[in-house]
Amino acid sequence: MKASAADVTPSTRSARARDKLMHTAERLYAEHGFANVSIRMIGEAAGQRNKSAVQYHFSTRDELIQAILTRHAEAIERHRAPMAAALEGSGEVSLRDWIACVIVPSIEHHIELGTPSWYGRFLAQAVVEPSLREYVIQAHLRTPSFRRLEQLRPPRGQDRDPELTARNAAMTRQLIVHMSAELEADLAGGRIPAAEAERSWRRLGETLITAICGLSSALLGSA
Amino acid sequence: MKASAADVTPSTRSARARDKLMHTAERLYAEHGFANVSIRMIGEAAGQRNKSAVQYHFSTRDELIQAILTRHAEAIERHRAPMAAALEGSGEVSLRDWIACVIVPSIEHHIELGTPSWYGRFLAQAVVEPSLREYVIQAHLRTPSFRRLEQLRPPRGQDRDPELTARNAAMTRQLIVHMSAELEADLAGGRIPAAEAERSWRRLGETLITAICGLSSALLGSA
Repeated sequence: MKASAADVTPSTRSARARDKLMHTAERLYAEHGFANVSIRMIGEAAGQRNKSAVQYHFSTRDELIQAILTRHAEAIERHRAPMAAALEGSGEVSLRDWIACVIVPSIEHHIELGTPSWYGRFLAQAVVEPSLREYVIQAHLRTPSFRRLEQLRPPRGQDRDPELTARNAAMTRQLIVHMSAELEADLAGGRIPAAEAERSWRRLGETLITAICGLSSALLGSA
Repeated sequence: MKASAADVTPSTRSARARDKLMHTAERLYAEHGFANVSIRMIGEAAGQRNKSAVQYHFSTRDELIQAILTRHAEAIERHRAPMAAALEGSGEVSLRDWIACVIVPSIEHHIELGTPSWYGRFLAQAVVEPSLREYVIQAHLRTPSFRRLEQLRPPRGQDRDPELTARNAAMTRQLIVHMSAELEADLAGGRIPAAEAERSWRRLGETLITAICGLSSALLGSA
């Protein structure tokens, strides 16, 4: 149902402007890099006449970036929540199923975004930016489904080396984030045709699951 | 031997200023992020009175960054060249030895840099910056020792899936770059004491070798 003119209240308008700023920021950051995009360029490219539009809606650049990250984390959570629930109900959890539950929701989210998308390259930059790094990591780890997954990780009931466990988690995160950014860049740059997008994402998902299974088994022992 | 006043020719002075600018840029970028550091801030922090010092010595920001990257790539090459030569002379090459030859030179370079260092966090940002990404990757791959390693990769004489081979190489690169940046941040932030630095770097090296062996075997089959 399309919104009629009467529906466009000031708060709808404000939500739309916010939305437009978030999409524009994500695209500009992905294409040109955090360093080459100013708050003002984002406002202008989003068609905002007010030069302080970003400040008005988000206060600071970091809050704008955090709002974008949170929106994506919520979308990914909608994929992961049912998968984590199913895993919890399935009795014995294999390492491969567990890792699939970490990776597939983010792959599905990328497919849902269509081509071109910008989230992958945006996220890869956010995660290496000193002021944002910790926020990005926590935005994903503090979701209910991730906390649920923590409890299910195989092999269960085994004391693992906490340093190796942390390194294993960091490697998993880095591979998902940076491999997704690379595939997204290949799709956006036309090096992989858009018609191949969905298949390429799923193939990347499979490759990541296999790779991270191998990596985790080598580091922590297999389930 | 200390330089006497007579040694300080204009070209020595220029080389020193260049050097100072490179070190300062690396530190500021690592600590504050590419987006939060201007060319002018670098000149000022490096004690250059001329406001166009960076432009004078490097023309553009990207050329400054490339000069820093090249210097590190050369230092790493000094570690890798003898290792690659030894590997070449050793007959049968195991996957683990081969991967060690990819990883250890960069770990040794980090140890050599001391604590705190900035290169790891600097590199992690450069590799996700759209305008620099390709340069960074090539700066390492086009070194003589890397080209030599390419020829030695086990299992030899086997046709591998080119897509999986490329993904495997990308994952290896991402893990080295981003895990090193994280350890460097932990050391710089005092979360790991400086006295533990060397041991921590070597342990990270071992962890990476084990993880990447597991990952590569899972993706491409073991040697």
